[in-house]
Amino acid sequence: MKTRTAILWIVALCLPGTWVAAQRAEPIQPITPVTVADPQMMELGKKLYFDPRLSKSGFISCNSCHNLSMGGSDNLSTSIGHKWQQGPINAPTVLNSSLSVAQFWDGRAADLKEQAGGPIANPGEMAFTHELAVAVVASIPQYVNDFEKVFGTREVDIDKVTRAIAAFEETLVTPNSRFDKWLLGDDAALTATEVEGYTLFKGSGCIACHNGPAAGGKAFRKMGLVEPYRTDNPAQGRVAVTGRDADRFNFKVPTIRNVELTYPYFHDGAADTLTQAVEVMGRVQHGRRYSDEDNAKIVAFLKTLTGDQPAFALPQLPPSSDKTPRPNPFK
Amino acid sequence: MKTRTAILWIVALCLPGTWVAAQRAEPIQPITPVTVADPQMMELGKKLYFDPRLSKSGFISCNSCHNLSMGGSDNLSTSIGHKWQQGPINAPTVLNSSLSVAQFWDGRAADLKEQAGGPIANPGEMAFTHELAVAVVASIPQYVNDFEKVFGTREVDIDKVTRAIAAFEETLVTPNSRFDKWLLGDDAALTATEVEGYTLFKGSGCIACHNGPAAGGKAFRKMGLVEPYRTDNPAQGRVAVTGRDADRFNFKVPTIRNVELTYPYFHDGAADTLTQAVEVMGRVQHGRRYSDEDNAKIVAFLKTLTGDQPAFALPQLPPSSDKTPRPNPFK
Repeated sequence: MKTRTAILWIVALCLPGTWVAAQRAEPIQPITPVTVADPQMMELGKKLYFDPRLSKSGFISCNSCHNLSMGGSDNLSTSIGHKWQQGPINAPTVLNSSLSVAQFWDGRAADLKEQAGGPIANPGEMAFTHELAVAVVASIPQYVNDFEKVFGTREVDIDKVTRAIAAFEETLVTPNSRFDKWLLGDDAALTATEVEGYTLFKGSGCIACHNGPAAGGKAFRKMGLVEPYRTDNPAQGRVAVTGRDADRFNFKVPTIRNVELTYPYFHDGAADTLTQAVEVMGRVQHGRRYSDEDNAKIVAFLKTLTGDQPAFALPQLPPSSDKTPRPNPFK
Repeated sequence: MKTRTAILWIVALCLPGTWVAAQRAEPIQPITPVTVADPQMMELGKKLYFDPRLSKSGFISCNSCHNLSMGGSDNLSTSIGHKWQQGPINAPTVLNSSLSVAQFWDGRAADLKEQAGGPIANPGEMAFTHELAVAVVASIPQYVNDFEKVFGTREVDIDKVTRAIAAFEETLVTPNSRFDKWLLGDDAALTATEVEGYTLFKGSGCIACHNGPAAGGKAFRKMGLVEPYRTDNPAQGRVAVTGRDADRFNFKVPTIRNVELTYPYFHDGAADTLTQAVEVMGRVQHGRRYSDEDNAKIVAFLKTLTGDQPAFALPQLPPSSDKTPRPNPFK
């Protein structure tokens, strides 16, 4: 499938008079399939991503809250952390996160590598330390062999661990959605209703934030632009990073790629359905009240943004050695 | 790889004068690769196995405690359940569990189908009810379509849910371990040390319980046969099912297939390493104290029992619909 996609792209690029010419000029651009720069690093990162031994309990992995069977999210309003602590904010999808301007809702991590170190050491999430996580990985012979192959050294450190995880996450883009096929000139890829939904989406102004290949992820914007957004969630967004009052309630615009899979919605996970999310966004961001019919059209459009989900074999994790520190789930 | 294995088997079966004749007559028999009776039911069961929506929290799936990236176990002494409750007993591996005489350490479930219903409704594990789990599945259109294809009806019930999960679990056998290759006549598959370890294993009497294709799983035997087994774990084994005093501390003999991956060991998960497990078993079951050298040889043999791990693409779960009851992780 990937080879076929690559060939189609090559054909498309070689024949600018045919397919490329038909590409629509829209504020949302198609997602480019990823080229894996270093397959060995990606494979190492994939294992680490699925490895709960990076947590104190031995139970929580990156995939626990950014579940690649479920749109790269956990489908919970806020996540479950070490000892069942309730997380402060909705876990954003890892899918297409490489296309974001920064990581986390408040953008406090510059890139995926920096992000990957956060939850490991967060007492409310994986509740480990970087030192202990590194000690675990360094005690597992197959991992050390992997590090030698990938980094040319048997020395494990948190920089290499998070680089590998980020290298894997960079591959988690989702091209070939029906919307992308339509963008690339395939008129039959969308129904008339879905195109009408997209037109409404653009006409209402949603496109001012949800644009680019990820249809979001590129800016921080205020939640509650024309009407205050009411929530019990205490998060105040970007102000936590910049300290500037103007950034209060500014959150990173989430990607709406695969939004059908990444419910519930918003930084507080308060909207269970796309219908609710469209209603709230229309009202608090644009001062609009969509008719049921228009709302349904926009929802129909949003569901065309589901692309190819990550397709790979379930990774097999290398076994612990006798020297591997054992997890402490109940202490 | 599977095709190749199948071809090798066909060749082997067609040439009884060559390979089959060389098969060793041993108390442990090779694992037969599985033939999937109903691929569609298996695929449905695979999705349900990975689906945390079968739990009250929306966070715990079958794969949480029987993790197919980690030898079909969670590598914890006892498992983590709903709201981080500490489980009463070590989670047995799901790998090769179809070869067991019954399910759970005390054999209280007759088969995999009966087992699969247990954790879903156990307040300390997934903490759901069968009715609610069925309501969730029945609210997801893609699942209902799957049920129609597999069972010829759009009606979801717990019987069909657990039948599908069991059908998937039956495929989780692990043929082609080095030990199996040796059993099938490949002398070079084991080192001299590993063969010596197997000879010690047999000579000590371990083979009296750990025999058959799963090297265990076929009987209930007392833990602490010649010396009481000391543990804080209150489980008393088979007596909970039969009520017979003679069954106190009788537990199902665990399979030792893939034992390198399924640490920690015993029903209480008290032995972190194979070295410890061999020491304890030698002492409390056989009244033997192995030399360090003999212990290491037995461990070397045990590590040859790691077979082909499940190899399939990470399943993609169908999204919830607007009607799907939402999870309740914190209530």
